[in-house]
Amino acid sequence: MASARDEGAKKSATLDGLTALLKADLDRVNRLILQRMQSPVTLIPQVAGHIVAAGGKRLRPMLTLAAARLCGYRGERHVALAAAVEFIHTATLLHDDVVDDSDLRRGHATANAVWDNKSSVLVGDFLFSRAFQLMVEDGSLKVLEILSEASAVIAEGEVLQLVTSNDTETTEEAYLAVIQAKTAQLFAAASRIGAVLADRPAAEEEALACYGRNLGIAFQLVDDVLDYSARQAELGKTVGDDFREGKITLPVVLALRQAGELERAFWRRTLEELDQQEGDLERAIELMTRLGTLRATLDRARHYGDAARRSLALFRDGAERRALEEAIDFCLARGH
Amino acid sequence: MASARDEGAKKSATLDGLTALLKADLDRVNRLILQRMQSPVTLIPQVAGHIVAAGGKRLRPMLTLAAARLCGYRGERHVALAAAVEFIHTATLLHDDVVDDSDLRRGHATANAVWDNKSSVLVGDFLFSRAFQLMVEDGSLKVLEILSEASAVIAEGEVLQLVTSNDTETTEEAYLAVIQAKTAQLFAAASRIGAVLADRPAAEEEALACYGRNLGIAFQLVDDVLDYSARQAELGKTVGDDFREGKITLPVVLALRQAGELERAFWRRTLEELDQQEGDLERAIELMTRLGTLRATLDRARHYGDAARRSLALFRDGAERRALEEAIDFCLARGH
Repeated sequence: MASARDEGAKKSATLDGLTALLKADLDRVNRLILQRMQSPVTLIPQVAGHIVAAGGKRLRPMLTLAAARLCGYRGERHVALAAAVEFIHTATLLHDDVVDDSDLRRGHATANAVWDNKSSVLVGDFLFSRAFQLMVEDGSLKVLEILSEASAVIAEGEVLQLVTSNDTETTEEAYLAVIQAKTAQLFAAASRIGAVLADRPAAEEEALACYGRNLGIAFQLVDDVLDYSARQAELGKTVGDDFREGKITLPVVLALRQAGELERAFWRRTLEELDQQEGDLERAIELMTRLGTLRATLDRARHYGDAARRSLALFRDGAERRALEEAIDFCLARGH
Repeated sequence: MASARDEGAKKSATLDGLTALLKADLDRVNRLILQRMQSPVTLIPQVAGHIVAAGGKRLRPMLTLAAARLCGYRGERHVALAAAVEFIHTATLLHDDVVDDSDLRRGHATANAVWDNKSSVLVGDFLFSRAFQLMVEDGSLKVLEILSEASAVIAEGEVLQLVTSNDTETTEEAYLAVIQAKTAQLFAAASRIGAVLADRPAAEEEALACYGRNLGIAFQLVDDVLDYSARQAELGKTVGDDFREGKITLPVVLALRQAGELERAFWRRTLEELDQQEGDLERAIELMTRLGTLRATLDRARHYGDAARRSLALFRDGAERRALEEAIDFCLARGH
């Protein structure tokens, strides 16, 4: 069964089903995003446009759109709320790039590299405020509660990541706490509000939140593997960003668990002291490949993907559910 | 009459009346702030506590508390909303210090100097989210609308300030647009929600918004004068921060308007090119004193203070109204 699913994952390693199903809605979300990122202060749409146009997958707003449809919602409100979700995500990306001091994202120069950190901080604040304005216009206090809590938890997760950075004592639990907060919480919130919009019972809300949370964890685990993978390089992206920043992701946590004294000294020098030399990244990848920790991280991602899939069992089969299942396959297949 | 008011301003150059009137409420606001800035991620209360404890005047939350009382509000909701206002303010301070690359605020080391820019960005995001959580718990969509719009406008104002920085062509209108957005909007929103809480007619809401807006402009004008004033040094604060950063504030705009070729070259070198030498700050102060632009800026502040005072005419005389008038005197008297 696992291998059948793997085959499925490899075959439908795109979001085509989801985007086809949601095309009309997604076009409206994109138009609304462009419209609501405008400001008489022209630097704002310039910076926001740079990151919005940089070719994000719009995965999180698609979760809101698809979850609303899955719950039988037939109104118009999901468009604005999907845009709000994407604004929150974009704001955190702008701030992330400042925090990580990144020059590249998705193979493009980051806003802080093109302009400066100041602009990224302030335009992030603007988009974050815009997200709340969109939610206030929608008028659901429950949605506001879900997304304001998600925003607070994301910030907590980002700070926690800062604290665990360069700490080779980081445990798997601590790492999972970081990615649950910084990544999975918004996936969960984005999915959950689909059920809120359709006024569905708590069980369906919780099932969609559970779907999003597990999908988010799987997504981040695969992302962390990709940062050490040749596949990443094929896609025109840089490899080793996490390594260079001394971020302690799961492949590293698992490698440290099996490390002898010499290897431990290597990880401490490179990730704690950030004393990195030519060939260190290659040695890190070689170590993780030999110990199978990249593979083990992907196995865990698959485990969370399965949990996400099971959460959907509550809903009737149909195009929406299949599209949400395909989103799991897409997230997992990126790692192959 | 103007001189009588000046006397009054000099005599009551404190917020004592306001703080005495609001003591019980303000204590509750401070307790709520301490309580709601907590997080299992301990770096968050550390960074937040550093700036919260740094001795702010709590001017903005006091406006909410006093305005609510002025409008006859007798409930409890003003406490949480005043805390939300202070959280928004604190978040913008944390981000401001990153944007300005400041080491000192109110004579204390800034959070970004004690920790780093990353922590300030992320803890600012956390406090901003907490502000929205407090508003959502309160449950008024109207308050959420007012404060989410204020947040977006503040971010626009900060970006506009970034754009006008180092630009000696900045007009008085452009400068006023910056401070209306970055400072006066939150003063206006903080005051206005007092009337919203008490469910008062639109005229009272607008009068309080008008009071706050004009008070905020007066406050910022005086602040900009203080940055070039010996009085600032007496208070143990640094002088010349704006000058060193090349910020174009009103005393400079007015000096540029009267500048000959030589003086224009001086301002361009120091503020546009940031090529500053020993004695340049003193020369700037000497130029502005000789041309009377510091004095002229204070005159304009008094003009906005008068407008704020007139906005209160709609309300019955009493302790609350006198305390809000005293807040105007306090803001103006800081410049003397």
